[in-house]
Amino acid sequence: MHKYGGSSVASPERIIHVAERVKAAWAQGPLAVVVSAMGDTTDDLLALLRQVAHDPPAREVDLLLAAGEQISAALLAAALQERGVPARALLGWQAGFATDAVHRKARIRDVDPARVQAILAEGAVPVVAGFQGLHAGEITTLGRGGSDTTAVALAAALGCARCEIYSDVDGVYTADPRVVPDARRLAVLSYEEMMEMAHMGAQVLQIRAVELAEARRLTIVARSTFAGGPGTEIREVDPTESEMSVRGVAHDRNIAKVTIRGVPDRPGFAHRLFAALAGHSVNVDTIVQSAPRDGCSDIVFTVAREDLPRTVEVAGQAAAEVGADASAEQDVAMVSAVGAGMVTRPGVAAAMFGALAEAGINIEAITTSEIKISCLIRERDVEAAVRAVHAAFGLGQAKA
Amino acid sequence: MHKYGGSSVASPERIIHVAERVKAAWAQGPLAVVVSAMGDTTDDLLALLRQVAHDPPAREVDLLLAAGEQISAALLAAALQERGVPARALLGWQAGFATDAVHRKARIRDVDPARVQAILAEGAVPVVAGFQGLHAGEITTLGRGGSDTTAVALAAALGCARCEIYSDVDGVYTADPRVVPDARRLAVLSYEEMMEMAHMGAQVLQIRAVELAEARRLTIVARSTFAGGPGTEIREVDPTESEMSVRGVAHDRNIAKVTIRGVPDRPGFAHRLFAALAGHSVNVDTIVQSAPRDGCSDIVFTVAREDLPRTVEVAGQAAAEVGADASAEQDVAMVSAVGAGMVTRPGVAAAMFGALAEAGINIEAITTSEIKISCLIRERDVEAAVRAVHAAFGLGQAKA
Repeated sequence: MHKYGGSSVASPERIIHVAERVKAAWAQGPLAVVVSAMGDTTDDLLALLRQVAHDPPAREVDLLLAAGEQISAALLAAALQERGVPARALLGWQAGFATDAVHRKARIRDVDPARVQAILAEGAVPVVAGFQGLHAGEITTLGRGGSDTTAVALAAALGCARCEIYSDVDGVYTADPRVVPDARRLAVLSYEEMMEMAHMGAQVLQIRAVELAEARRLTIVARSTFAGGPGTEIREVDPTESEMSVRGVAHDRNIAKVTIRGVPDRPGFAHRLFAALAGHSVNVDTIVQSAPRDGCSDIVFTVAREDLPRTVEVAGQAAAEVGADASAEQDVAMVSAVGAGMVTRPGVAAAMFGALAEAGINIEAITTSEIKISCLIRERDVEAAVRAVHAAFGLGQAKA
Repeated sequence: MHKYGGSSVASPERIIHVAERVKAAWAQGPLAVVVSAMGDTTDDLLALLRQVAHDPPAREVDLLLAAGEQISAALLAAALQERGVPARALLGWQAGFATDAVHRKARIRDVDPARVQAILAEGAVPVVAGFQGLHAGEITTLGRGGSDTTAVALAAALGCARCEIYSDVDGVYTADPRVVPDARRLAVLSYEEMMEMAHMGAQVLQIRAVELAEARRLTIVARSTFAGGPGTEIREVDPTESEMSVRGVAHDRNIAKVTIRGVPDRPGFAHRLFAALAGHSVNVDTIVQSAPRDGCSDIVFTVAREDLPRTVEVAGQAAAEVGADASAEQDVAMVSAVGAGMVTRPGVAAAMFGALAEAGINIEAITTSEIKISCLIRERDVEAAVRAVHAAFGLGQAKA
């Protein structure tokens, strides 16, 4: 199973390059391929849409966006056939992808790989349009990066042990190399580590793809379409394999912070608030609630910036109902140290806070999990923060 | 039923304009809409495809091109909802279009309008992607201009008496106004006249749409999206309504001429030749066979220019088998006088040949039907020929 991302098929020349790569792999054995939309197609389509509708219906957004992968799949299949490789482009529904009913963020419910298997049995290459599926006769899409999930789900349905995900980066790094010049590629990451890295803005893989790979015990290999190299393997990692406590430093600028002050210290508000947000399809990220003081507490949470307008509306209403105040800020970012070995090593949190303090960076909120420590900071400090934490844990010099 | 062509939805501004038009019509009563792909989308997609595959597989071409109408339908439905008009975009298969298996030139086999009717029953506007259908789980397309046929077939399935087809021209003219400055818009044309006009290059409507409208006794109105005006009605015309013998002058530059010389005067060759061409999906247009001389005859026929390479191959082989010679020319064009009343008026053919002779234009072949006379001429003469014939029949001054 190969999956090629948008930058890998961004132009006819690149599609031909991918076709040559697929041809070489196919010569070694049967192969299915999943593709994203070409380059900026998805953004271009959304830009067109915004010019005709301010608040477009999700059903029509899905119908519109699904055209992107339809185009790239057809082009790649044609390019393969031109090069002597029998190939068939398949839309999501043709490849057997059934999803739930949630437009724009649908979840795959079932993959019936019969048609893909029939094409493989003919010795041909199925080229599947990623990111899309069908629910009750309606086209759905899986959300940003959803083609990764398409690839992993199809690989699992076909019983593949590995799914190679090709993009314009050659793996997962200890930090974003554009921010940290001595960042290193990691040879192996556990599923949990990858999820935290992905979640925190290392946009190599969609998180749901990693979750699904973990559930099916399938190895993902993140590789470059253009460079050679082994890439990064995301798989089950024996704890003893993981020498380092901190494996990488992730950061995320696409967040906004919402603060609700003066929440009466009675049960039920948090439930009502976050249920209302979920009802509006807002994914809430970090949540921090302060200890109550004078019978009131403050709740701070973060959301993706594109969800902020809806969030402010819903949270403002919920806050007003209990006499609390909601406010929002966009000038924030999250920096996180991630590593499966972290929980067993003392002093990691202290080292991280120390590195940020030494760099003069104020921490606005902290959350931790078993494999990460995240600090909410000002957006302007984010690059300095990533470099400071990366250096503090010696990630630039150590072995992967 | 409204159908909007590619130029009518070529930009976000134009889509908004169409949405306003649809909104006004919907306020008067239930309305279904069919759209073509935006502007040059189809050509742009084909240009992309040519960069990755010299001889692309028809199945993948259809998958690729169907994305064009998918995009425009989603955008128009979103634009309508933004303007308070409930609307649902539907792909060809969602709107119930089943076709035969011939990719790129599929014919509609059946329209199941249940879903479109359900949307209409809700008071919403179904916005159907034209040009596309489904055969055995495969996306098919109906050929150039196929969205017209989509619209007429859907109008018929819904029991509509009229189908309004909007484009950037305000009707059918006595000749191409770019060639003949005093050409007039025709208020009414019979189906047969429209077919001959369309066939001969008046690219207002796809011929199959007109055939289908005739079979279902449905009136097509060809109108402008941008100008007001009544447009041209294409409907059954009582012969007494038709005062003029010649209604219009059509021309077609998209033809190539194939000549087969020295065909032995025995039965079977014409059948073998044209069956072979049909087997390669080449539509042969005019066919002229000369009277035999010295046991041999010549066959001249025309095809669309894009079919010429295949035609030359097939015809060359067939000719070689009987010791004949095939040759081809692209520098030709057809000019035709069209009119249902023509067959009952003497002298029309003589008047047309006289007009061409007076303009110094050589006629290479002549074919006639009950409602048209066509002359094959050199392409360089085509504009002068159209003007000469238009003037000879007094079309510029007469009433429509």
